[in-house]
Amino acid sequence: MKKMDKLEFYRQCIQEILTEYSKHPSENGEIEVQTIFDTKNDHYQVVDLGWDKHRRIYNCVMHFDIKDGKIWIQRNQTDDVLAEELVRMGVAKEDIVIGLRPEYVREYAGYGVGYKI
Amino acid sequence: MKKMDKLEFYRQCIQEILTEYSKHPSENGEIEVQTIFDTKNDHYQVVDLGWDKHRRIYNCVMHFDIKDGKIWIQRNQTDDVLAEELVRMGVAKEDIVIGLRPEYVREYAGYGVGYKI
Repeated sequence: MKKMDKLEFYRQCIQEILTEYSKHPSENGEIEVQTIFDTKNDHYQVVDLGWDKHRRIYNCVMHFDIKDGKIWIQRNQTDDVLAEELVRMGVAKEDIVIGLRPEYVREYAGYGVGYKI
Repeated sequence: MKKMDKLEFYRQCIQEILTEYSKHPSENGEIEVQTIFDTKNDHYQVVDLGWDKHRRIYNCVMHFDIKDGKIWIQRNQTDDVLAEELVRMGVAKEDIVIGLRPEYVREYAGYGVGYKI
């Protein structure tokens, strides 16, 4: 796979996971589920926002980045194992960085290590 | 102003506020400040993410949407008064919806009211 093809494929995988997740209906009718895709800077999210009666709800449920050809999982508030889902879709294990784990434990998980931000 | 021009102008104002804010350096070197601009679906954010020693930091600082020609302020974790800033930049007061306030108080603030999501 050429480098450009690989990135395009990774972008597709991420957007597919987030779009699929965003289809789950919210428990009350007042919560909007937004997919936010910044394809220029490669930031991708699902955000829940709205109201639970008088209480403001604002929560980013999932967030992926692509940096230097690797997918960074920056946030995951679900119990889906996103790294495994990406591997199943065909993403190389070493191209997945679990950013939400501290750097010093990443190397023991078998996924990518990434670099210091 | 034509409708398209107005939207483009509103997009510029929002991106300018967020880009300006994102230039503030973080207190330690481990926090990345991301601007996330989904210009297709008109969602715009600044997100802080990274580490404070061993503690994961993830926080959306500001979030704007554009819906039906109006700017929605969905989140603001700063003490900047974003609505006033937008007005100073030339945004019409009635085109600003303070989404982070409950719907039933919006009409008393002099800004737009918006619609139920």
